[in-house]
Amino acid sequence: MSKTWANSGVDLHVDLTGTRVRAGLESALRDAVRAGRLHPGERLPSSRALAADLGIARNTVADAYGQLVAEGWLAARTGSGTWVTRRQVPERDRPAAPASGAGGPRYDLRPGVPDLAAFPRRAWLAAARRAVNAAPAGVLGYPDPRGLPQLRMVLAGYLSRARGVIASPERVVVCAGFAPGLAAVCHALRARGARTIAVEAYGQQVHRLVAEAQGLRSAPLPVDAGGAVPDHLAGADAALLTPAHQFPLGVTLRPPQRRAVAEWAIDTAGVVIEDDYDGEFRYDRQPVGAMQALAPEHVVYAGTASKSLAPGLRLGWLVLPAHLVDAVVAAKESAGELNSALDQLTLAEFITSGAYDRQIRHSRLAYRRRRDQLATVLRRQAPQVRVTGIAAGLHALIELAESDREDDIVARAAEHGLAVDGLERYGAPGAHHGPALVVGYGRPPEHAFTTALARLCAVLNPG
Amino acid sequence: MSKTWANSGVDLHVDLTGTRVRAGLESALRDAVRAGRLHPGERLPSSRALAADLGIARNTVADAYGQLVAEGWLAARTGSGTWVTRRQVPERDRPAAPASGAGGPRYDLRPGVPDLAAFPRRAWLAAARRAVNAAPAGVLGYPDPRGLPQLRMVLAGYLSRARGVIASPERVVVCAGFAPGLAAVCHALRARGARTIAVEAYGQQVHRLVAEAQGLRSAPLPVDAGGAVPDHLAGADAALLTPAHQFPLGVTLRPPQRRAVAEWAIDTAGVVIEDDYDGEFRYDRQPVGAMQALAPEHVVYAGTASKSLAPGLRLGWLVLPAHLVDAVVAAKESAGELNSALDQLTLAEFITSGAYDRQIRHSRLAYRRRRDQLATVLRRQAPQVRVTGIAAGLHALIELAESDREDDIVARAAEHGLAVDGLERYGAPGAHHGPALVVGYGRPPEHAFTTALARLCAVLNPG
Repeated sequence: MSKTWANSGVDLHVDLTGTRVRAGLESALRDAVRAGRLHPGERLPSSRALAADLGIARNTVADAYGQLVAEGWLAARTGSGTWVTRRQVPERDRPAAPASGAGGPRYDLRPGVPDLAAFPRRAWLAAARRAVNAAPAGVLGYPDPRGLPQLRMVLAGYLSRARGVIASPERVVVCAGFAPGLAAVCHALRARGARTIAVEAYGQQVHRLVAEAQGLRSAPLPVDAGGAVPDHLAGADAALLTPAHQFPLGVTLRPPQRRAVAEWAIDTAGVVIEDDYDGEFRYDRQPVGAMQALAPEHVVYAGTASKSLAPGLRLGWLVLPAHLVDAVVAAKESAGELNSALDQLTLAEFITSGAYDRQIRHSRLAYRRRRDQLATVLRRQAPQVRVTGIAAGLHALIELAESDREDDIVARAAEHGLAVDGLERYGAPGAHHGPALVVGYGRPPEHAFTTALARLCAVLNPG
Repeated sequence: MSKTWANSGVDLHVDLTGTRVRAGLESALRDAVRAGRLHPGERLPSSRALAADLGIARNTVADAYGQLVAEGWLAARTGSGTWVTRRQVPERDRPAAPASGAGGPRYDLRPGVPDLAAFPRRAWLAAARRAVNAAPAGVLGYPDPRGLPQLRMVLAGYLSRARGVIASPERVVVCAGFAPGLAAVCHALRARGARTIAVEAYGQQVHRLVAEAQGLRSAPLPVDAGGAVPDHLAGADAALLTPAHQFPLGVTLRPPQRRAVAEWAIDTAGVVIEDDYDGEFRYDRQPVGAMQALAPEHVVYAGTASKSLAPGLRLGWLVLPAHLVDAVVAAKESAGELNSALDQLTLAEFITSGAYDRQIRHSRLAYRRRRDQLATVLRRQAPQVRVTGIAAGLHALIELAESDREDDIVARAAEHGLAVDGLERYGAPGAHHGPALVVGYGRPPEHAFTTALARLCAVLNPG
């Protein structure tokens, strides 16, 4: 059933079906104001009069008016009735940005993002429901800047068993992904006098920028087939490394180098930041344990859910040397940084319930299959390239012929609707490595992976 | 049904009920390793042999082994079988911190936190479910540092109609609460040469610290009965104000002062940061619109869900002058700060569905009742104090006799299991106001409010 109601020449069509009476009245009024059919300042009939007109309960009208007052569409004052407010019309000087995810390349083999279609939405929502329903109300206040104790305890246990990290809840600090954790550590190091951080000569440019924004100078650290070269640490106060699976070159820091880095830190009171961004994903043997265990008072272990679940969650964690905990927490506080309590509770529940381990296990199998497929297809169809760095993680390095130009191949790929990254964009100034592509095979959704690979081969074999 | 399986003298009790076979086997193995009954390096029977022993499918055993390998309890290599890993035992050098929310005062009338028991858990979870299920996978990648376009569009509409803000989605930047937004704005201002920020002489100390951590000098701005005193803005490059409801004094910036502040900003190219922390809560008349509308190119409007929903969500938003958008986004990026995509989608859905307006409306009614009760009870039972700042918000100022000492009263309250704040803790050095208490009447859960008030009266009437 619906009715039409007229006010100063404006006809309002109100849907009066079942329990929707009030909602129908509200939306009719909203639409009328939005469309300018009810003008600012225009007075509405009393709730009594309108209720009689429409043949509905007066309280229903009063509730609808109240809701619209709360929303700012209407204003009311006792004795003066209810009228349409004068609202600011939002200016729309530029068209809105396109929705996230729209307008990207058809096939995307850039590294750094896992298969987002594999995010376990149902399990995550179920964990959120259990966690939120079980949480005492006090948890919804301003969270502990170190992270909720519940989550720190769960993470300490997980990192200890799964990554061999020497962890206790007091050493764990939760952060909104790796970058803000890095910023807080760099801030703390700078505050105690550090000047220079050695950063692998190939890596995420944004990490260098984050360190520099905190006042540190970044010095490139060469990387060879054994990983970062420890000889070049001399003179640095800190070092940022990806020991388990160098990003983007894909090598693993070999045991002698791991020990040399740990010894450098111990001898010089230096601090190593171990970016374990994809440490869970190792395919052919036992995962390499965190190097933090070699020198827990000198290594900051940093992990994240960005590769194992999704970057959009913005959940990461640090395990800190005892002497850095307070300084890093103070740095977080001076940046105003705290993590959502609900997200932290959800992650704690997700890990405790076993869902996190299950997700890692499923992903590891899926990514290993893709890695094998990538290696096989390239060996057969593009034997001129060399595929390296595939023992772990979600990306591989495709080494091109010396005469190839990365830019040309990236451009040719774009013409095929395929996004790939050249290695050079990850290099510090002066870094030199032969031409190569960094291929993130984790990223495409499952159904698109085979086609993405076929296009990659086509790009590598022009003409 | 359950079975017992023996391995090298270890009896493993395995629950084999229904679909729990695999889970039972996994948990028996985990328990055995955790308790040290299965030792590091110890070899497990082949999946075929164990399956035969237990009378279950071989795949079930293989899956359980696989899961435990994924979790790091076991290791496996083709041809070498499966064995127990050498794990790091977490050190527990200090006892874990108590769970959040435990150990606080019995009754808490400190300001800054709303009634957390009123957080609409069910509606929030429902919005999360709808938002997460409807989200395209791409949204789970690294979020736009400005905030998701969907949420910025929804916020622009909401702030325009509910707070009179001149807002377009391009001007909105999402941040993890007010403090990180303030940090980003201060960083951007400092980068373009600002030196001094005028900060109300009474306010949250942490905001001064955040501004100073970004390299700005904070200069106290006197506050009188008309709000911040604009004459004292001379020499500042920026100003941080709470125009709708001064925190903690509770006054509203009067129209002439609002205009004077806006004119100062326009004349000197200064920037006003309008901290609209509780602007939705005004009780006796139409909410005061945001002062941003007077000078949208000179005022940064800052809002948050910390008072309207819960601080634990860490959701806030800025509406920026066009000339500051890129610099603030760059500041967020250099701090590595991005917000959870899922939380942003959930908030957008929560607002769009009308749940946010409903929550504000319910809260406003509840807090108005509490405010009236506070005023009535104090008028009757402690007529010697003066209650001010109650036209809006979730806190009031209780002005004491000149001879009263805040510290004494706060200490006496603590003896009654009641937490209150003295005004002095919110004052900049040199700020002078008579002794007063800042009472957050929004904070206690509903059932505790009447008792909290009775204790407050008892504290104000000793002997």
